[in-house]
Amino acid sequence: NEARFLDELVDLLRVPSISALSAHQADVERCAAHLAAHLRAIGLPRVEVWPTARHPTVYAEWIGAPGRPTVLVYGHYDVQPVDPLGEWTSPPFEPTVRGGQLFARGAVDDKGQLFIHVKAVEAHLRTRGALPVNAKLLIEGEEEIGSPNLDSLIRQRQDDLAADVAVISDTSMFAPGLPSLTYGLRGLMYAQVELVGARSDLHSGSFGGALANPILALAGLLASLHGGGSRVAVPGFYGDVRPLSDAERRAFAALPFDEEAFRRDLGVDALAGEEGYSVLERLWARPTLDANGIWGGFQGEGAKTVLPARAGAKISARLVPDQDPERIGDLVEAHLRAHLPPGVRMTYTRLHGGKPCLTPLNHPAVQAAARGLEAGFGRPPVFIREGGTIPVVATLDEVLGLPTVLMGIGLPDGHAHAPDERLDLGNFYGGIRSATALLDELAAALEAR
Amino acid sequence: NEARFLDELVDLLRVPSISALSAHQADVERCAAHLAAHLRAIGLPRVEVWPTARHPTVYAEWIGAPGRPTVLVYGHYDVQPVDPLGEWTSPPFEPTVRGGQLFARGAVDDKGQLFIHVKAVEAHLRTRGALPVNAKLLIEGEEEIGSPNLDSLIRQRQDDLAADVAVISDTSMFAPGLPSLTYGLRGLMYAQVELVGARSDLHSGSFGGALANPILALAGLLASLHGGGSRVAVPGFYGDVRPLSDAERRAFAALPFDEEAFRRDLGVDALAGEEGYSVLERLWARPTLDANGIWGGFQGEGAKTVLPARAGAKISARLVPDQDPERIGDLVEAHLRAHLPPGVRMTYTRLHGGKPCLTPLNHPAVQAAARGLEAGFGRPPVFIREGGTIPVVATLDEVLGLPTVLMGIGLPDGHAHAPDERLDLGNFYGGIRSATALLDELAAALEAR
Repeated sequence: NEARFLDELVDLLRVPSISALSAHQADVERCAAHLAAHLRAIGLPRVEVWPTARHPTVYAEWIGAPGRPTVLVYGHYDVQPVDPLGEWTSPPFEPTVRGGQLFARGAVDDKGQLFIHVKAVEAHLRTRGALPVNAKLLIEGEEEIGSPNLDSLIRQRQDDLAADVAVISDTSMFAPGLPSLTYGLRGLMYAQVELVGARSDLHSGSFGGALANPILALAGLLASLHGGGSRVAVPGFYGDVRPLSDAERRAFAALPFDEEAFRRDLGVDALAGEEGYSVLERLWARPTLDANGIWGGFQGEGAKTVLPARAGAKISARLVPDQDPERIGDLVEAHLRAHLPPGVRMTYTRLHGGKPCLTPLNHPAVQAAARGLEAGFGRPPVFIREGGTIPVVATLDEVLGLPTVLMGIGLPDGHAHAPDERLDLGNFYGGIRSATALLDELAAALEAR
Repeated sequence: NEARFLDELVDLLRVPSISALSAHQADVERCAAHLAAHLRAIGLPRVEVWPTARHPTVYAEWIGAPGRPTVLVYGHYDVQPVDPLGEWTSPPFEPTVRGGQLFARGAVDDKGQLFIHVKAVEAHLRTRGALPVNAKLLIEGEEEIGSPNLDSLIRQRQDDLAADVAVISDTSMFAPGLPSLTYGLRGLMYAQVELVGARSDLHSGSFGGALANPILALAGLLASLHGGGSRVAVPGFYGDVRPLSDAERRAFAALPFDEEAFRRDLGVDALAGEEGYSVLERLWARPTLDANGIWGGFQGEGAKTVLPARAGAKISARLVPDQDPERIGDLVEAHLRAHLPPGVRMTYTRLHGGKPCLTPLNHPAVQAAARGLEAGFGRPPVFIREGGTIPVVATLDEVLGLPTVLMGIGLPDGHAHAPDERLDLGNFYGGIRSATALLDELAAALEAR
């Protein structure tokens, strides 16, 4: 069925379901409808499109095994914007296979990964006419904009969503050929900073030297965010950071990670980051404060001698346990206000956030997932953390009391959120085998409790 | 003739001759042709369009007074880009009169101002059939991109351009109703800084904390340009600055300038700039180092969690005697390279430059221009400096040995280089009367030498 599975995934990837851009609103809705139709076609008896204030969520279930455990699979069908478009080798919404990789926006984040569970459900229903556990699929369209409506939806639909364990495939393997279970995620605080100086843009000759320049003021604010050793200089930023244990540092150090190869792959002369920590420690267990975008004044060709009226930036912090996005957002805003020079006004807008989390390694569902991955890939997984954020993991714990198994089949060079996003087809098919085995393993592990 | 003069200026302003944008190449050429046709129509016997490597220069002359002095009028028919377009009250290339002001891109910089000399020449030719002096008009199409071909053109055409004095109207009056002669201009050094980190944009969760962020690196570089008291921190930057004399500081202080009203007009809570100098001193006689544009990463709606591969900025220094643009460009580059953090590469591109200059107040042509302005506006002018740059003034001195009279009829709130650029129509008509009288005054003053 490999060729058919690939064709079906390509159809899903063709829909440009960019949740962040209002121009793509209709595409997002079309993608939800497409996915719902597919879930009906594979034989799921209940498939619904749940509206939200912005982008709908697709829900499907098979609960034909009363008394058996219930698995809730979460995924998202929305994707990131695609700019800079010029850096894509093939167009982002014309999926293309090159060298065993499928290139498209959403290939790995997250359409390709959620699809392995869809195909696993289909495999059980086709071959046995039933699943070994009850299964619920919750596939949202707002993950890339911070899931603004997901928490309230999960609260409203608590009864529908009741389960024993959640499974998410939206992370990466540690390396090609090395199946991995992710037990820790960083959180996120994302904000926009805008500075306004004069009423309008001015001639830099006639006015330069008399008033504040919003670009330079913004540069000063951004520069104030870090101090010596690339440490974040915002007072209180590290206050709630749980220190790394020696055991965890040793486990990270034992993983096959080559900093020099990592540097070379990125194409940089030198790596950078907080002093005193290895790259894996910095990526997985230390917080960051980054700028994600900046703008102001003249960006065109040539030389325009303007003193701009405005400048702005998007900034974000990656958070680790036990940092809280709300508190970090407040600390960053207070720091910026304290450093704001005279002559400019600042607007600070919180855009989204998500809590960091760690899942217990000894939960039977985690062990079941390890056996599922071994069945799909022929070797037991390693246990890793990941620098990205999946805020729903915290919500699933808080609202539904679910532990989450993070069984990702992406690769470190999958270019999620970047041009030339790609999915390794070997991982796609291995992921389908693993997800199929996972349902049997979960049935056994959770019933045995 | 006022209505006809206005209609003719409107026709000239309709042509979007934006020299910086290659998409407007044909418009620039059309503007040169339009202007040349008009100069022929008013009776100038020699009118030529001189090609250059990019945008043509329009040349016209009337040399029917052998033995009499020769005036070279310089102007430019090219204009600045118009973004942000949304901030214009009426479209930039649909000239509109509101409240005695003509709103259009180029209204004051410089089409409206060069046109007063065209109409002055026409007035003499129509009423007397001859000019009191020989007159040459040199109207270029590359001023807003730094006149890259003007120096070599003036050198090649030295014989055609030989004259006794140059007149330029491309500056502002000190205040409405206060005719002004400008005797000092700041120079300019304009450059582009681009930083590159990783090979491509990356996911800020998966990679944040491991490598340098080009936006933050750029912010650090820009922040390093200034130190305490808003002084430029580039070593050697102030080395060649000629100190202000006590007499000049007193003259500046005697001008009717209200810092509080200036602040209010700009719409800022506080003015800013180098400590220890008044606003006029900072604008006219102290150098600056500003950012004119900045870009990098995600600038769209919403939250894209990207670690960008690139960031860039346009920076420029306004220079005062005796700073040299080449030397300042080198010092700024050396400073940036010295502060460049590991993990990013920098490209520094010099975009353009112009020397600062001061004209002797006691030259007979300056005194003639003062009488011309008195004739046109009913009161003698004040003598001022100006923060902007007209690099051709240095070239006219160097190559042709000409002193330059700067007889501007713009106003301080003319919005040159900004949205809603406008020309005061009273100043336009007063300027035509002044320019007409100027030709008689120059005839008398220069022959008497």
